Amino acid sequence: MTVAALDGLIEALRCLPGVGPKSAQRIAFHLLHRDRRGASQLGDSILHALDVLTQCERCNTFSEKPVCQRCASPRQDSGLLCVVESPVDMNMVEQTLAYQGLYYVLMGRLSPLDSLGPKELGLDRLVSRVLDGTVDEVILATNFTNEGEATAHYLASIFKAKGIRVSRIARGVPVGGELEYVDPGTLAQALRERRQTPA
Amino acid sequence: MTVAALDGLIEALRCLPGVGPKSAQRIAFHLLHRDRRGASQLGDSILHALDVLTQCERCNTFSEKPVCQRCASPRQDSGLLCVVESPVDMNMVEQTLAYQGLYYVLMGRLSPLDSLGPKELGLDRLVSRVLDGTVDEVILATNFTNEGEATAHYLASIFKAKGIRVSRIARGVPVGGELEYVDPGTLAQALRERRQTPA
Repeated sequence: MTVAALDGLIEALRCLPGVGPKSAQRIAFHLLHRDRRGASQLGDSILHALDVLTQCERCNTFSEKPVCQRCASPRQDSGLLCVVESPVDMNMVEQTLAYQGLYYVLMGRLSPLDSLGPKELGLDRLVSRVLDGTVDEVILATNFTNEGEATAHYLASIFKAKGIRVSRIARGVPVGGELEYVDPGTLAQALRERRQTPA
Repeated sequence: MTVAALDGLIEALRCLPGVGPKSAQRIAFHLLHRDRRGASQLGDSILHALDVLTQCERCNTFSEKPVCQRCASPRQDSGLLCVVESPVDMNMVEQTLAYQGLYYVLMGRLSPLDSLGPKELGLDRLVSRVLDGTVDEVILATNFTNEGEATAHYLASIFKAKGIRVSRIARGVPVGGELEYVDPGTLAQALRERRQTPA
């Protein structure tokens, strides 16, 4: 007693991260019964996005044009290149309003367990971008997870060997943070990477 | 610096239950970068399901035809009508292989806080289904939540007034359950609704 279109939808919903058979049923029911307009928009948006989105030739993020709006427009610090793991991270950096340079989005991180090596990440594109003569400093802003750290370490060794200035964003106690609630690893880093107070 | 197709997708993903702005970004990234084939299937499946699925005239569940396969085919206990909240619940009952009767799917429950009353649930369709002369017993299998219980209570009072036999599925200790780990409310019900052991 199956309904092909419903079963197809439930099966297709399982491509969403973290969605198992039970959640897929619930989501299908929600879409078909509670929010048909939203569902219709979602279907259209997915197909439209797949159709028109490509990756920017310069920074590798999603873009509707070969070179994205950000790379195409003049930036104050065009000699700075901030390397992040994902477009979400790029947005987070942009939201700080503290950075006026350019970006490179890895679209992932080195992760041997998922067979994601330098080749799969297309790191040679990043290397040729960095060596194109316009980059003064590479800022590594990958996550402070094991994989993000390994990726930053790997990239730093490559760029240093080519004589490029490389930096890593700072670790330490978060703004507004209380020492009592910070984990020991972070506090240890904050001590090790302490900065002299200005005179 | 926005990419219309990407922003549209992220916005559209928020129609999924429990998905906020951060999750929507993550899911969009996953679909566009990690699983384009799955994404394409998902887009197609949603639009196809919206296009072909309707609700069965008899049992109210999703169906591609006016009367669903289950209602159209002969059932052993066609005088039994099991009332459930959702198609998922109907599948759960079917999976027990312990029920050979028919169903009615409410597609919701009475929930005054969400302004879902008898009218919004279309309960008059259920009433006319129950009174069509083929139903010997209505089995109320709504959830044992407050709203499910209220819905069962409301339906029971309607059908009893019309002289229809009404039953409610049993509450008690789950199969394989240990008293030590059962909550007091369930245990109290199991005591109250105890059954005489067969001689």
